[in-house]
Amino acid sequence: MTQRLRLNKNAERRLKAGHLWIYSNEVDTKETPLKNFTGGETAIIEEANGRALGVAYVNPHSLICARIMSRDPSMRLDRSLFIHRFNQALALREQLFSKPFYRLVHGEGDLLPGLVVDRFGDILVVQLNTAGMQAMSEEIVDALEKVLKPSAIVFRNDTGGRRQEGLEAQVEVVKGELPDEILIEENGVHFVVPVLNGQKTGWFFDHRANREWLNRHVAGKRVLDVFSYVGGWGVQAAASGASEVLCVDSSGPALEQVARNAELNGVHEQVAIAEADAFDALAALKADGEQFDVVVLDPPAFIKKRKDIPNGERAYARLNREAMRLLGRDGLLLSASCSMHLAPERLVDVVRGSVRHQDRHGQIIFQGHQGPDHPVHPAIAETAYLKALGVRVFRD
Amino acid sequence: MTQRLRLNKNAERRLKAGHLWIYSNEVDTKETPLKNFTGGETAIIEEANGRALGVAYVNPHSLICARIMSRDPSMRLDRSLFIHRFNQALALREQLFSKPFYRLVHGEGDLLPGLVVDRFGDILVVQLNTAGMQAMSEEIVDALEKVLKPSAIVFRNDTGGRRQEGLEAQVEVVKGELPDEILIEENGVHFVVPVLNGQKTGWFFDHRANREWLNRHVAGKRVLDVFSYVGGWGVQAAASGASEVLCVDSSGPALEQVARNAELNGVHEQVAIAEADAFDALAALKADGEQFDVVVLDPPAFIKKRKDIPNGERAYARLNREAMRLLGRDGLLLSASCSMHLAPERLVDVVRGSVRHQDRHGQIIFQGHQGPDHPVHPAIAETAYLKALGVRVFRD
Repeated sequence: MTQRLRLNKNAERRLKAGHLWIYSNEVDTKETPLKNFTGGETAIIEEANGRALGVAYVNPHSLICARIMSRDPSMRLDRSLFIHRFNQALALREQLFSKPFYRLVHGEGDLLPGLVVDRFGDILVVQLNTAGMQAMSEEIVDALEKVLKPSAIVFRNDTGGRRQEGLEAQVEVVKGELPDEILIEENGVHFVVPVLNGQKTGWFFDHRANREWLNRHVAGKRVLDVFSYVGGWGVQAAASGASEVLCVDSSGPALEQVARNAELNGVHEQVAIAEADAFDALAALKADGEQFDVVVLDPPAFIKKRKDIPNGERAYARLNREAMRLLGRDGLLLSASCSMHLAPERLVDVVRGSVRHQDRHGQIIFQGHQGPDHPVHPAIAETAYLKALGVRVFRD
Repeated sequence: MTQRLRLNKNAERRLKAGHLWIYSNEVDTKETPLKNFTGGETAIIEEANGRALGVAYVNPHSLICARIMSRDPSMRLDRSLFIHRFNQALALREQLFSKPFYRLVHGEGDLLPGLVVDRFGDILVVQLNTAGMQAMSEEIVDALEKVLKPSAIVFRNDTGGRRQEGLEAQVEVVKGELPDEILIEENGVHFVVPVLNGQKTGWFFDHRANREWLNRHVAGKRVLDVFSYVGGWGVQAAASGASEVLCVDSSGPALEQVARNAELNGVHEQVAIAEADAFDALAALKADGEQFDVVVLDPPAFIKKRKDIPNGERAYARLNREAMRLLGRDGLLLSASCSMHLAPERLVDVVRGSVRHQDRHGQIIFQGHQGPDHPVHPAIAETAYLKALGVRVFRD
């Protein structure tokens, strides 16, 4: 029989407002000790007065000790529920996109806390980020097969979230076989994606709309793409008419893929690569007197935890300052951050500080966010993480 | 000789960080009494230690008693400066847009505090929102003629900002003549714009990118456009393939223009109009059992001053709730706010409250802002005012 998890008084308020997370200090552990639960076990969530609020899965060892899967307490967390939710998620993506390359499931934003599924045509790459999703992995695979009939399903279970949940890393093709190269198309440009050994699931679909915006403003321009990874920004810029693109990354294999992707789109003559630490590269380019019309900064998250905020903000500030020095008289900076802990107005302040530092002027002409296949849950601020500012930088 | 305006100790900090406004309580009025200044007079701004910070114009009767025009204290506020700034502003717009329909000058965002210029082809509509800009109106008109050679210049000096500055309303064609109809194109759709008696300058260019986003999601849909004004959203939706559009506004003349604009684009059979108060219309549509696939809410600013925040937030909440009731099982809400005092996260909360109120789910799939011809000044939060959320609303 399904165990109950009883909340402290008033702990139901945030949940009734729509949130899906229960913190361990919100549980009435006298009434329902967390140690009675195994990792991933299902529980009925009850208010202090005993009224059932919904059904969740539990991880007794995590700060977020339970995540609500349904507000209907009688809902069973089985294959049928996953099929239903996958169909809901798919319906949205099929309205949004004409081609099957997108994030199909964005965790809480798709009412599937802890689950990520990226779709690369008929290949699905899955992240099970919580003990609850791990415990339901068979149902998830079955439901994905039923809804999408994929040729292969890959688990990229090597995320930071799993470590916090006490789960082991696991990268594995769990169904079918992978082809030699996995191809996607974004904004009309083709890419080979390294799903097994690339970053995260292999591709960052979240910047699609931000790249589309940038693509409109690069014709004839000299573009620097810092933290280029496999060339999402840089190769698209070249394919959109940039005269010259330099992709900088610290990973040799990622840069080999940049070259392959440039070739795939017939822009290998426009795209150069440089293997280097980003800050070293910016300093070297400055020393060489190089200038660019457009600089793209899409760094990894500098702020992973709340306590990293001060150091992280300093790193974003330094990066933006150093990058801005490479812009010509009237240049465009695309400054992104995927740190959930960096508030949008703080990134604006980073830009403000950088332009003032060089006695230039800045005009923010674009404020971008994660794409529509990464829906934000309106009650869960943590589901909105991506920022991209387009800034015209000029001397008066 | 130009008077000096001396700041209190530490009052220079915000300005050194990039801000352009000086509040009356920041002035050392013993040293430099504000009453020594006439409205619109030029002044050199000095730190408490006497160091010159820049040149500003003054309004001794306004809470914002001075606005910096240049960080170079020797800069003269003359025709040459306006020509320089207009050329800078024009260069950005010419990079952004292939047709001459846009906001050419967005006040502080274009380093021209208090000045707005909208461009409708070779017709310019100007708002002089401060005593300083009013005092320089001749230089402004001269500079606009020099840079753009317009066929007509209109003053739409009937803004709320002017009242606060103690300036009279004035609507006047100050140069040239207006044709019978003034035409613009936005996102490939044509509109007649009432520059003399419409809202603000006659057209809201700020939603261009948000409308472009919505246009991609309306094919075959039934659309409700609340606070339609002359049909910016509704007529574009129809031209983008919406099967049926209902435009609701309380202004008969605005709705006549909706009809004219629908005709102009050959979509008059798809576009219906209804003259009514928005809340009355939403209630009546609900009573009639009407449902829509897409609802657009683009109300006027419900929060004009900080003290209006509580009432204004309640009005936004009520509007969003009532509108959401008209959405079918899987609908799209476009919820906008142009209130600078409504923080972006508060609009998210309005959406959250509305979906919870009806026990539905919401996914925010779009976060839009003002378009790039309304640049945000990174040091002046007040220059970022427009929000537009695209929300998928569904029943689980």
